[in-house]
Amino acid sequence: MIKVIAKMTIKEGMAGELMSSIQELVAETRKETGCIVYQLFEDTNNQKVFTFVEEWVNQEALDKHLNSKHFKDASSKLTGILEKDMEISVGTLVI
Amino acid sequence: MIKVIAKMTIKEGMAGELMSSIQELVAETRKETGCIVYQLFEDTNNQKVFTFVEEWVNQEALDKHLNSKHFKDASSKLTGILEKDMEISVGTLVI
Repeated sequence: MIKVIAKMTIKEGMAGELMSSIQELVAETRKETGCIVYQLFEDTNNQKVFTFVEEWVNQEALDKHLNSKHFKDASSKLTGILEKDMEISVGTLVI
Repeated sequence: MIKVIAKMTIKEGMAGELMSSIQELVAETRKETGCIVYQLFEDTNNQKVFTFVEEWVNQEALDKHLNSKHFKDASSKLTGILEKDMEISVGTLVI
């Protein structure tokens, strides 16, 4: 299993924009073969920070997701919403 | 549900130290009432980065965890292992 944590810091007042931009991404991603978990969290202490927490069965499933139309469409929309580059970490379970 | 993501960057060559320091923490934490998920991931692209991904039923359960003996013992051991302060984010589910 592969874990992905993708932290986004959005521009001031762009939370609504973010939500509308990721609706299709979330719905389509959850339908993908190989997607175990795909959730978005809002930070309790910083209203500009949102984090995707994902689980994929393997690297192949993740690669397919990153090349999907819904991922590319959402990434393009996010460009104007994010204050800085998304911080992405990919990991495997230790314990 | 409360999500906690705690990212650790360890000093060079301290992965073994880290593992032995968190065994009891992980075992005891998973026994806690209110702990849904408590997993540790190693970063695929940076062998010095490890991330706890946690889920708690509510803030009360998380607070109790943060005040537990096993958490305090592990935190004390981690002081000499971490290269910099742990980066902790607490969040709630959006979608």
